Amino acid sequence: MQSPSFLASLRWDAAANAVEIVDQTLLPHALRHVRLDTLDAYSHAISAMLVRGAPLIGITAAYGLAHALSLDASEDNLAAASARLIATRPTAVNLRWALERMQAQVEHLPPEQRGAAALACAHSLRDAEIASCAAIGDHGLALLRELVDIQRPLQIMTHCNAGALATIEWGTALAPIYRAHAAGIPVHVWVSETRPRNQGTHLTAWELQQAGVPCTVVVDNSCGQLMREGRVDCVIVGSDRTAANGDVCNKVGTYLKALAARDNGLPFYVALPASTVDWRCAGGADIPIEERDADEVLSVSGRDDSGAVRAISLSTADTRAENPAFDVTPARLVSGLITEHGVFAASADGLAELQRCCQGFSSTPM
Amino acid sequence: MQSPSFLASLRWDAAANAVEIVDQTLLPHALRHVRLDTLDAYSHAISAMLVRGAPLIGITAAYGLAHALSLDASEDNLAAASARLIATRPTAVNLRWALERMQAQVEHLPPEQRGAAALACAHSLRDAEIASCAAIGDHGLALLRELVDIQRPLQIMTHCNAGALATIEWGTALAPIYRAHAAGIPVHVWVSETRPRNQGTHLTAWELQQAGVPCTVVVDNSCGQLMREGRVDCVIVGSDRTAANGDVCNKVGTYLKALAARDNGLPFYVALPASTVDWRCAGGADIPIEERDADEVLSVSGRDDSGAVRAISLSTADTRAENPAFDVTPARLVSGLITEHGVFAASADGLAELQRCCQGFSSTPM
Repeated sequence: MQSPSFLASLRWDAAANAVEIVDQTLLPHALRHVRLDTLDAYSHAISAMLVRGAPLIGITAAYGLAHALSLDASEDNLAAASARLIATRPTAVNLRWALERMQAQVEHLPPEQRGAAALACAHSLRDAEIASCAAIGDHGLALLRELVDIQRPLQIMTHCNAGALATIEWGTALAPIYRAHAAGIPVHVWVSETRPRNQGTHLTAWELQQAGVPCTVVVDNSCGQLMREGRVDCVIVGSDRTAANGDVCNKVGTYLKALAARDNGLPFYVALPASTVDWRCAGGADIPIEERDADEVLSVSGRDDSGAVRAISLSTADTRAENPAFDVTPARLVSGLITEHGVFAASADGLAELQRCCQGFSSTPM
Repeated sequence: MQSPSFLASLRWDAAANAVEIVDQTLLPHALRHVRLDTLDAYSHAISAMLVRGAPLIGITAAYGLAHALSLDASEDNLAAASARLIATRPTAVNLRWALERMQAQVEHLPPEQRGAAALACAHSLRDAEIASCAAIGDHGLALLRELVDIQRPLQIMTHCNAGALATIEWGTALAPIYRAHAAGIPVHVWVSETRPRNQGTHLTAWELQQAGVPCTVVVDNSCGQLMREGRVDCVIVGSDRTAANGDVCNKVGTYLKALAARDNGLPFYVALPASTVDWRCAGGADIPIEERDADEVLSVSGRDDSGAVRAISLSTADTRAENPAFDVTPARLVSGLITEHGVFAASADGLAELQRCCQGFSSTPM
C-alpha cells in the first residue's frame, strides 16, 4: 500500500547532507520546498512554523542536531545546539523528547563517532514515527470497516490537521482515512476549517486533495447541523496531549464536536501515538491551555486578487480578543483511542492497558 | 433609560421624505450613512445587505413601499413596488409579513390617501418593533439579575448579531444586556465571531463598543472551553424562526453553544419577538435550512494595511465547501424563550401559553 509520501513533509537528502521540508506557512497557495542545511535554517523552520505538528517538529529537530554534530561533535556544541533547538518552541513536548533521546544516544560516544550515530538516531526516530502512524491507520481502518454503508461513501469528520503534514507520512487522524481510501472503501471527509489558524482549509483540505480523497470544507459552526442531518458517520481527531484518565487535549473546538457527536449517537475517535499520553497528568484539568496572540483571531491571511498572500484585519484597532489554542474533551465523550498498539477505551483502565502495551516496546517513550 | 439609538440602524428624515440607514457591509471598518430616497435605493439596500436582520429588513421594506406610494399610489404601482421589494430577500419571513401588513392597511383606501396611510403604517411598525425589543430587554433583565455575582461582572455569551443593528433599537439578544448595563450591573460579553460572515466581530463587537459595554471576541471554537473554565454565566442568542414545539432555528453554530451550555450546567436563553414563531411549523425538522454560497466559507473580507476593505481567498480554486447558514437547537436544550410578552418554556405547553398571550395583542402578527 502506498503512503501519501508524495507530500514529503520532510525528506532526507543524503547527497546534500540536508533535509528538505515543505514550507507550510505558504500552503495551500504555494508548494515550496525548503532545504535545511544550517542550524539557523533548522531553528527558523521550527520557530517560524514552516514545519508544525508535534511529531514533525520532533523529527526536524533531531535532524537539526545531527547536522550540527556532523560539523562539530564537541561536548560544547552538543549542549549549545540542543539548547538552541529546544528554545524554538519551548512548550512542544515531542521536541524536547526527541532531543533528549538524541543526546542519550550520542553523549557517551567519542566525538568522532557522534555525527554518524546522531544521523542514524534521527533516521530511526523518523522510521518509528512512520511505523507508528501506519499502525494507527491499520487499527483505525478496522473501526471504519464496521461503519461502511453500501448506500453512500463513509462520511468522516475531522478537525485541524492531524495528517501527513503534521507527521512524516500518513498522519494520525487521517491515517485510517488514507488506509480506507487505499483499500478501495469510498470515503468523504468533512474538513472543519479550524479557526483561528484555518489548518483545516489550509492544510487538511490541501493534503486530502493531493491524495485524491474527496473532501468538503465547512465552517466549524456547521459541524453540529451536519450531524443532525445524518450526513456524518463518525469523527476522528488527533490529540496534543492525553491525560492518564483519558481526557483529551486537542485543538480548540474539538470538545464541541465531541458534544455534537454524543448528542447524535455518533462515534468520536481520537487517533494518537502513545508518546502523546502524559502519564504524569491525572486529568484534563491539569493540562495548561496555551493562550495565543489575539491577533490570530482578529486578522486572517489568504490570497488576494493578484495572487499575493496577505493578512487583513477583521476588526477595529480597539477590539479585544482572547485566543485559547486548545480545549479539553472529557474522556466520557470519547468512543475510543486509536493508537499504534490498538484501540483502547478512554478511561483510567483503558489507559493502564495502553501503558502495559507500551512497556513491551522499548522504542516508545514513557 | 436611553436606548442605544445613537446606532441609528434606520432613521426617518421627514424633511427629506427619506430614510437614513447605516451601510452594514462596511462595518466595523467605516461608519457610513446612506440615504434611501428611491425604490431602487431601498431594494438595493436590502438585497445587497446594507441592512440585515429580519426585523430591520421588514421595516426598511415598509418605508420603501411607503415611498413608492408617495410618488404613485395606483393599484398597479402598489403591486409592482411590493413585488419588487419582496424579491430582494425571498426567504425572509418578516419582509413578506411587513409588506402584507402595509398592503392590508392601504389597498382599500382611495389612492390619494394611500401615501400618508402607508407612511403612518411604516412608522407604527417601527414603533411596535422598538417597543417589542424594549420589552424583551426588561424581561431578560429580570433573568440576568438572578445571575449577578458580586465577585465579578456578569459573563454573557452571545452569537451572531441580534442587537441594535439587526433591529431599530435595543436588539433582541442584546436588549437584556443593554438594559443591565444601563441599570449599572457590571456586564462583560463574550462575542463569538460567527463564521462564516463574522457578524460577531464585525457587528456585535462594534455595537457593544459604541455603547460602552465591555466585550471580548473569541473564535466560535473556543466557546466550549470558556464554559469549562467557568468563565461564562449564561448564553443569550436570537432566533430566525422558532417552531411550535420550541425548537429554535438560528445562525449556524447556535446548537453547539447550546450543547456546551447544557454540558456545563449553564442557562441558554433565546430572545425573540413572538412574530418570529412559526405556528404552522410543528418542529425543527420542518424548518428548511438555507444553503448559502460556498464562497462565504472560502473567502474573507477585511481591512488591509492601506486601510482598504478587500476580500482574500483561504483556499485553492478547486476546494469544495458547503455553507448551511442556520442550525436547529432542540427545545430540550433551551432554558427559556425571552419574548415581549414574558419568558416562556421552550415546549409545546410554553408555546401554547405564548400564543394565548399573543391573541390578546392585535399588533402581533399570527
